[in-house]
This record gives sequence, C-alpha cells and structure tokens, in this order.
Amino acid sequence: VPPAGTPFGDRLAVLVEARETQIVLGLDPDPAKLWPQADGDVAAHCRAVIDAAGPACVAVKPQVACFERLGVPGWQALEQTIAHARAAGLLVLADAKRGDIDISARRYAEAFLAPGGLEADALTVSPYLGADSLEPFAVAARAAGAGLFVLVRTSNPGAADLQDLELAGGGTVWERAAGIVDSLGEPGAASGLSEVGAVVGATAPEHLVRARELMGHAVFLLPGIGAQGGRVEDLAPAFAPGRAGGLVTSSRSIVFAHEKGGEPAAAARAEAERLRAAAWALA
Amino acid sequence: VPPAGTPFGDRLAVLVEARETQIVLGLDPDPAKLWPQADGDVAAHCRAVIDAAGPACVAVKPQVACFERLGVPGWQALEQTIAHARAAGLLVLADAKRGDIDISARRYAEAFLAPGGLEADALTVSPYLGADSLEPFAVAARAAGAGLFVLVRTSNPGAADLQDLELAGGGTVWERAAGIVDSLGEPGAASGLSEVGAVVGATAPEHLVRARELMGHAVFLLPGIGAQGGRVEDLAPAFAPGRAGGLVTSSRSIVFAHEKGGEPAAAARAEAERLRAAAWALA
Repeated sequence: VPPAGTPFGDRLAVLVEARETQIVLGLDPDPAKLWPQADGDVAAHCRAVIDAAGPACVAVKPQVACFERLGVPGWQALEQTIAHARAAGLLVLADAKRGDIDISARRYAEAFLAPGGLEADALTVSPYLGADSLEPFAVAARAAGAGLFVLVRTSNPGAADLQDLELAGGGTVWERAAGIVDSLGEPGAASGLSEVGAVVGATAPEHLVRARELMGHAVFLLPGIGAQGGRVEDLAPAFAPGRAGGLVTSSRSIVFAHEKGGEPAAAARAEAERLRAAAWALA
Repeated sequence: VPPAGTPFGDRLAVLVEARETQIVLGLDPDPAKLWPQADGDVAAHCRAVIDAAGPACVAVKPQVACFERLGVPGWQALEQTIAHARAAGLLVLADAKRGDIDISARRYAEAFLAPGGLEADALTVSPYLGADSLEPFAVAARAAGAGLFVLVRTSNPGAADLQDLELAGGGTVWERAAGIVDSLGEPGAASGLSEVGAVVGATAPEHLVRARELMGHAVFLLPGIGAQGGRVEDLAPAFAPGRAGGLVTSSRSIVFAHEKGGEPAAAARAEAERLRAAAWALA
C-alpha cells in the first residue's frame, strides 16, 4: 500500500502492477436485473459482483445514476458498495459526470472525494463549463490524493455532435478539452501519470493515438468495450506511458456474462479474467 | 392550477402570469452560513428562505451539489425542501447539471423527474455528450410534464474555453448546443414554449439576442444576476416569446440580502420583490 499523500497516478500505478490488472468493474445495478443471490438488495448484488470479479480488477466504477435513482436507500447502497470495494483492495472511481462552477464544483468534489464524503478515489467530470469549473475539482482531488477523469471523447454516437466539431483555428472541440486536461494535471513523480485523467471511448480507437499525443501524462478511462462494440485489442496506444496509462472499464459484459451460460459469479469471474489477460498482454 | 398532463412550457406560462413573477429562488445552503432561525438545520433554513422570498418567485432552484455534499441527510433535506416549495405553490427546478448516455441518462431523469423520484418540475443538464444523451432526459421530462434546462452559454469566465470556440463551418460551439435544444423541444400549444429550455448566463447579455434567434421556443434560465455581475435590465431579449420566456435566478443576493442590513427574512423578501418588479417591468 503506498503511503498516505501519494498522488493518484502513483497510487494507481503501484496497484496496477501489484494486482496485474487494468480492468475496472462497472457497477450499474438495475433492481430488475440483480443476481438471484442478492435477494433484491442492490448493495448485496454489488458486493456479490465485487467478490466474484474483483480479484481480476484494479477498481470499481459505480454508475452514480443507478444509485441516485433509488433515493436515500440508493445513496446508502452506494456508501456500502464503496466500503466493500475498498475492503477488497480496489480503487473506487465514482462515475457521476459532475460539472459546475466555483462553490458548487467544490461541493461536488467534497461529496465524492473529501474526508467525510463518499471518499471515492476518483470522479468523472464534464468539461463543458470550461477550465475554471474543473479547477476546484482538481484542487480537491490533489488534496485527497484522488483523481479526476474528464469527459474528453466519449463512446456514444452523439459524441460527434459537439466533441468532434472542427474548429476555425484547427483541431476539434474534444482536442481542446484534451488540452485542458493536460494543463490541469500534475504528473506523479514515480509514475509520470497525472491525477487528471480522461474518458476516451474505446469505440473510436482511431482517436486514441491523437489523444495520447495531447495528453501524455493522463490516465485514460476507456469505456465502450463489449456491449458498445469496442475491442480490447485496439487500445494499445492508451498504454504508451505505462500499464496504468489505460483503464479498461466493463460492466454489462462481466455482470451479465452468465446470460451466455453458467452461474453469475463464476461467469463474471471468468469474463473479468479474460478481459484482464487480453489487456495485460497489450502493454 | 393547469390540468395534469399539461406540458411544462404551458404550465410555466400559467404560473408566471398568475404569480406575476419570473424570479427563481436559488437554494445553495451552506451549513456554515444558515439563517440563525434555522438552528443549524439545512432543511429548516431552506423552508425559512422559501417562506420569506417565495411569494415573489415562481420557482425554487435547489443546487443539488449543496445537498449531495451532506450525504444521506442532505438527500433527505432536498426531499423536504422540494416538498415545502411545492406546498408553497412554487415550481422546483433541480440544478444538478447531469449528463450521461442511454440507461444512465434515463436513471438520472427518473431520479429527478419521474413519479417515485424527487419529482422536480425541471432539471438542468449538460450537452457535452451530444443529442443522444439528452434525448432520454427529454422523453422522461415530457412523460412527467416536466422540463429540462440545457447548459448552452454559461455565466462563468471559463464558458469561453469550449462554448465560445469558433467552428470551421461558422458559428460557435454554444450555438450548436442551442441548435440541439431547439430541435429537441416541442412547443406547448398554449404558450409556444417548449419543455426543453436553455441556461444562458446573464453575465454576457450580448449573447441573448443570438440565443433567442436560435431557440425561439426555449425558456431561458438566466443565472448570473447580482453577485456574478449580471443586470436584470439587460435581459429583455429573453422575454421575446412572452413573460415566461425568461426566468431570472438569484440565490446569494436574496439569501444574504441582510448582510447589507435588516433581518434575514425581511431583507430576502424585499430583495426578491425588488428583482421581481425589475424583471416584470421589462416584458
């Protein structure tokens, strides 16, 4: 375990090497589709998924929308899920896609990253409001030894609507967002990886090389593998700064692996291990 | 009271005329700066603010970050605040700036707008992920008779970083976001106002005329009056489609009006009424 105060990038790099995995386990619980052994309890479902697939993963990524939908009990389930993941030695990347200005940004950062809040290890944030809206998140993250993942080039078709627009001065909107990410982060001394990372969809691997050029020190959070059509084999550019330079996130392909046969926990464990080995072989 | 199933724009227009106000009361409670009579209780503070300033307002706008920061008790305070505002005849615009894709977007929309969720009347959302990320919010809003306010051109200096970028094809990023807002909404039959509105900062009134050209049916949510430097007198273009075409939101200038003298409730009431009269005189 790295000492307290270690920057996020360095913590992550140590953990990726120790656990030999770059896989992030997405937790998007749907009360209508929980594992049978959870008996209808969202937190129990998440615990079971973590117990099954966690050993092949370096982090969990709870989709906050799925918990928030459930109101107060959902918030409690999120707290319990985070505690269980941490006890299992996993980092917690809160997928909340928050974004706001000054005091409100600080409040969100405190909610997710600060002592007395959810104390996640990282938070996803949106850059539409500009650098001054991300700065309070970065300050709070650094103070907590935590990280950010800024939405840069997402995995959905609608990413083309604003992110891919060509600018009069050259480049695209998402490349400008990448520039903000690069200037906002401070590379960790041991790993060279910054605490400000980027969400770069695995569904458009043609952007990965350019994203890596623009953000040499950023950890890439790579959604879109599996159900959305992305392939692990296309992600090699993400790992240029080291094995912790890319985190491959998967939710449905692990949690619902048993739909192709087998018992939920065993199927999830096997699929997570398959993804782990495929990504590890690249870097 | 308009009949159930009335679209958001039509509901809003009826309420603005009935209450003779376009003012939205921002609720950004800070546990360190609550009104003395609240005795340290966030929900009690919000109730007192609503009781004081609500009569001059058409809606409240809880800043969700401020409640989320407080964890489970904060979520409960948000529920109580929403119930109190509704009982006072006010609409509730949840300022959460959410944004995500497909299922996650639906979950956020359900959390804030659907029966069994917080049942707010409207939600602020971010457009960075594109039109397909906003569509699930719009579908959920229509089903609930609720509205959306999409971040288009925000009130902070960082708005220039991405929103103001000039595009190779002409126009700016925020003008493209405005185009998405315009195509996503459906004007109400009675008011001509759509359920998909736009956040347009009052700090850059030079953009208001252009924003109105691009979004003829959108309700503009106008932050930035007072503490951020915007002036009510500059907002006239927002009201072109009618008095409910612009909603002037203010938080600090109302809640902390007593810092210039007087008792908190009386000072808040007077400041809200001053803003109400200034905006009403424009349209």
